[in-house]
Amino acid sequence: MPVPAPNLYPPFNTIRLSHVELGVTDLQRSRAFYVDTLGLQVTEEDASTIYLRAMEERGHHCIILKQTDKAGARYLGFKVYDEDNLDRAAAFFKARGLPVDWVDSPHITRAFRTRDPQGIPLEFYARMDRLPPIHQQYALYRGVKPLRIDHFNCFSPDVDAAVAFWNEIGFRVTEYTEDADTGRLWATWLHRKGGVHDIAFTNGAGPRLHHTAFWVPTPLNIIDLLDLMSTTGWLANIERGPGRHGISNAFFLYIRDPDGHRIELYCSDYQTVDPDHEPIRWDLKDPQRQTLWGSPAPRSWFEEGSLFAGTAPVQSTLAASPIIAP
Amino acid sequence: MPVPAPNLYPPFNTIRLSHVELGVTDLQRSRAFYVDTLGLQVTEEDASTIYLRAMEERGHHCIILKQTDKAGARYLGFKVYDEDNLDRAAAFFKARGLPVDWVDSPHITRAFRTRDPQGIPLEFYARMDRLPPIHQQYALYRGVKPLRIDHFNCFSPDVDAAVAFWNEIGFRVTEYTEDADTGRLWATWLHRKGGVHDIAFTNGAGPRLHHTAFWVPTPLNIIDLLDLMSTTGWLANIERGPGRHGISNAFFLYIRDPDGHRIELYCSDYQTVDPDHEPIRWDLKDPQRQTLWGSPAPRSWFEEGSLFAGTAPVQSTLAASPIIAP
Amino acid sequence: MPVPAPNLYPPFNTIRLSHVELGVTDLQRSRAFYVDTLGLQVTEEDASTIYLRAMEERGHHCIILKQTDKAGARYLGFKVYDEDNLDRAAAFFKARGLPVDWVDSPHITRAFRTRDPQGIPLEFYARMDRLPPIHQQYALYRGVKPLRIDHFNCFSPDVDAAVAFWNEIGFRVTEYTEDADTGRLWATWLHRKGGVHDIAFTNGAGPRLHHTAFWVPTPLNIIDLLDLMSTTGWLANIERGPGRHGISNAFFLYIRDPDGHRIELYCSDYQTVDPDHEPIRWDLKDPQRQTLWGSPAPRSWFEEGSLFAGTAPVQSTLAASPIIAP
Amino acid sequence: MPVPAPNLYPPFNTIRLSHVELGVTDLQRSRAFYVDTLGLQVTEEDASTIYLRAMEERGHHCIILKQTDKAGARYLGFKVYDEDNLDRAAAFFKARGLPVDWVDSPHITRAFRTRDPQGIPLEFYARMDRLPPIHQQYALYRGVKPLRIDHFNCFSPDVDAAVAFWNEIGFRVTEYTEDADTGRLWATWLHRKGGVHDIAFTNGAGPRLHHTAFWVPTPLNIIDLLDLMSTTGWLANIERGPGRHGISNAFFLYIRDPDGHRIELYCSDYQTVDPDHEPIRWDLKDPQRQTLWGSPAPRSWFEEGSLFAGTAPVQSTLAASPIIAP
Repeated sequence: MPVPAPNLYPPFNTIRLSHVELGVTDLQRSRAFYVDTLGLQVTEEDASTIYLRAMEERGHHCIILKQTDKAGARYLGFKVYDEDNLDRAAAFFKARGLPVDWVDSPHITRAFRTRDPQGIPLEFYARMDRLPPIHQQYALYRGVKPLRIDHFNCFSPDVDAAVAFWNEIGFRVTEYTEDADTGRLWATWLHRKGGVHDIAFTNGAGPRLHHTAFWVPTPLNIIDLLDLMSTTGWLANIERGPGRHGISNAFFLYIRDPDGHRIELYCSDYQTVDPDHEPIRWDLKDPQRQTLWGSPAPRSWFEEGSLFAGTAPVQSTLAASPIIAP
Repeated sequence: MPVPAPNLYPPFNTIRLSHVELGVTDLQRSRAFYVDTLGLQVTEEDASTIYLRAMEERGHHCIILKQTDKAGARYLGFKVYDEDNLDRAAAFFKARGLPVDWVDSPHITRAFRTRDPQGIPLEFYARMDRLPPIHQQYALYRGVKPLRIDHFNCFSPDVDAAVAFWNEIGFRVTEYTEDADTGRLWATWLHRKGGVHDIAFTNGAGPRLHHTAFWVPTPLNIIDLLDLMSTTGWLANIERGPGRHGISNAFFLYIRDPDGHRIELYCSDYQTVDPDHEPIRWDLKDPQRQTLWGSPAPRSWFEEGSLFAGTAPVQSTLAASPIIAP
Repeated sequence: MPVPAPNLYPPFNTIRLSHVELGVTDLQRSRAFYVDTLGLQVTEEDASTIYLRAMEERGHHCIILKQTDKAGARYLGFKVYDEDNLDRAAAFFKARGLPVDWVDSPHITRAFRTRDPQGIPLEFYARMDRLPPIHQQYALYRGVKPLRIDHFNCFSPDVDAAVAFWNEIGFRVTEYTEDADTGRLWATWLHRKGGVHDIAFTNGAGPRLHHTAFWVPTPLNIIDLLDLMSTTGWLANIERGPGRHGISNAFFLYIRDPDGHRIELYCSDYQTVDPDHEPIRWDLKDPQRQTLWGSPAPRSWFEEGSLFAGTAPVQSTLAASPIIAP
Repeated sequence: MPVPAPNLYPPFNTIRLSHVELGVTDLQRSRAFYVDTLGLQVTEEDASTIYLRAMEERGHHCIILKQTDKAGARYLGFKVYDEDNLDRAAAFFKARGLPVDWVDSPHITRAFRTRDPQGIPLEFYARMDRLPPIHQQYALYRGVKPLRIDHFNCFSPDVDAAVAFWNEIGFRVTEYTEDADTGRLWATWLHRKGGVHDIAFTNGAGPRLHHTAFWVPTPLNIIDLLDLMSTTGWLANIERGPGRHGISNAFFLYIRDPDGHRIELYCSDYQTVDPDHEPIRWDLKDPQRQTLWGSPAPRSWFEEGSLFAGTAPVQSTLAASPIIAP
């Protein structure tokens, strides 16, 4: 089995994925997408930045939209257990020869920026400003009724190497696709918070951000979003779905924001908190791993992803593929 | 407008579409599809014939499956108001020079078979055996929880002519697709019972039966069926969907039975009982008429249809297309 | 059986229930209820009147809210097939010695007001102004996503007499509750448009309007409304439900508007277009007739109803009950 | 605030609630309830014992039904992180003077039984036999489609004391009801696995088991169960609901098994993995804490609970209440 045994005593305790900062080229157009259409809530905004949270989140933000000249994914944020674990995380990255830059991140007590070995820019922190609950303010629910950020998915030029690193820092594999011919990993889903994943890696020129996903209440909310987008000028932004993934069992929809950043709406995966939860293996040749049912994914879904700031993607060691950023 | 004005005082009063007899080549395999998978209820069966009804129907059958050497659609059944209207219907068809054969149709008091001018075999009747209600026997609900037969859709080589005839016998147009270049009808939906259609005609080599549709409670039941079919050996029988039609506004799924007869699962169209209900016009060039959202229909969906017994399809007068029967 | 045989050839052809005019004492408060909370669409308004329609309706209005000193139900509106049927209706009522007053009803070509024998004020018409479809303007959907007016339910002091009259004018019984001790009807549901009812009568001091019902897409929309009402100051206006009726099989919720007019949100009854559709009998002693499951109805639901303009309610001939108007 | 600060470094790491053993007096009748009606899967059975799991669980069992002369709750099971944590748990309980009996628990590597200070019988273990996934065998889904065991709820005679103990072993409070007059806790919800609770305590004569809850996909599955139970002879076993709790925000239904053991069907609470997740306070006088909307709970729901084996309930220190076991 190409999947490493889970590291049950990792060097520091990461709680969950937390947020992403996206560079966008037309902030008001992005606002129309994320706020008016998806239904995320604005927690703060000015002329160059919009902070958003989903309906059951109490942290200050899960997405930061930043007006930029060129679209891109600026960094992925992760929350660790407490300040002690944050220091241990910093020590771990430093010991690996990876950069550790303590930054002044708005609404966060202490944060450092680093990169994983493949170059994905990361922000770690323990405490973010907390906001009052709004999950029972039902008059605020709109669009797809997004409840919380669920996961990131990244193109990786060497999934085996990516998994080795993230497994070492305590992310546990729940499902994976193996290339039976080479015995290598094609794609892998890893979690901290007890769902199928906080982050996934898929073979391809990278690193690039494939998508950011939001958990929604039921498949009917995704159908509501499709009805809304298809009749309010967003039809072309619907990329793939709805359908059900074999991997994760999730009911899904993929859409693209005005800059081409990909968002997944996602529900009905399963609980994975058991430390002895066995990963599920899928063969690369099994088409139901991606699509238990539903139309095949379009070419763009396989090829396009957001560039990470400061990292040029490289070709996969497994199979060459085009490097396309929206 | 190429749509004729509704005939508010037709020669006889048709209540609704009622049933279809399908020739199938492996009766037990068809039973596995219609009964075990879709969830229709068997009301009678022997070695060569299975009668089915949906959960809220009290008529004895909406589908008759008949073991045959060659698959095909044997006739479409319609219910008229009473025996007097049945006689008036027979007189109307006879006056038109169309065949009227009084037949001994099981579980039906009096029935005649005829054909519309394009050759579709039809059965008209007023009274069928009634069965006790089962709509509150919730232990019987299975599969997609089919509630009632909703409509037929047929390929027609001359939609203008088909609509002229069916409009004359009181079927009212609710929506239609016009070929703006020629001013001719490409497709038309006509109803008697107060929904978007009892029967529709789409341009193509015909007559052939494109599909028979069942009304289901909610989109979630269609998603349940997709989950079931994709994990019980019926994945290849899913042809198109789920999606929402622009025309009819229905949430839909198209599947194929073991002989290739197409079944639509359908919900959330709208009420059309008003005699002054205005038809909605769609342009042939508007892709949202077929697919408000959802993946494009595959080629098979455009080309394949069940042959009607005793009628050889002819080419469309509007555009040549392949004549394919599953 | 205490239910009369259906009159298949009634004196005139009524298509469906159409609209109701409600007197309300605080028009803006009523607007907050019907528009902001339920999600009905305003088609016209001024200082004293608001016209509303539901999402799939094309007629100009299904509810007229009229600012008045004293709350009440002013009349129930019904649509007939065409102007000829309207004249036949007028002749029928006149022949019965019932009033026929031709009125200038806004947005209606020709209309007359009358009363049924128990005194319910009625408006009949054939043609109302038609509006463009909005059922695919998904950005407009709000609240419970009301699709169309579904039925009226009235307290009647003599249900047998009410059914005899309405059956004569072509309304067909679908379900009824019989008092086995007396052999008399306790409650009856009658339809024209092909669902379980356009109008129902329940034993009680009357005539009074028990409720007006709206068809909604799925039970989840009713749950959404409950979430919304319970967190926006309308908790006390939730009267009964959610639950499922034995009679009609509908999933239901009853709420009260600011003046106490009762509104039912309703879905999942069944098609009844067959002229030979057999009524279902329920025994008055069977509690599942009202509540297949769900909490018992509160006392207010049994006792309170809107007064009809110009008609004082009288005691039931079957059982005395309080006469309470909200 | 009467809620203790979370103990972020507890003496041992509990992963989640795991299973309950219920004594039942008619095993086959209980099978009809849990298997045929709710839809739990049998993983092993003999004449005296049935082991059950829910659809996404891979552990061997979440409920053990044991034929007994007298109904009762025999113990609540919890899973810890690994064998080392199991030994630390044993040491902790021993140090507190609580019993630690290592037992031969079927399908579990090593397990000990103990009691919390109020006498609730508990089983702790780290590794249970694992079974192949069935969550994508959609043909197996039945009844309410139970996905996983979600939580226990217990009557406690001293909620402050119960919370102090369970908080010490790492269970974190998410919501609580305070009696403003006394400043004492009336009820508290505590979690390990990242939802609103693994266990809750409510003031009342105890300890008694109030209910065991299962997570289900959507509110519609609960409505399906209501339809099924109300038409298959289980109507009287529906105790309360459906409704939405203020606390937890869950959509709920409470039903009773043939021995009166209470089962909750539950969905749509929220993620609580953040160590700094702030508990939500509710006032005992706020009726929306229990019922955001829905009918009031019946008396039985407040008073009746399953007795724990070997522990006689005692009166609450806060308010006397009847001690009723079904």
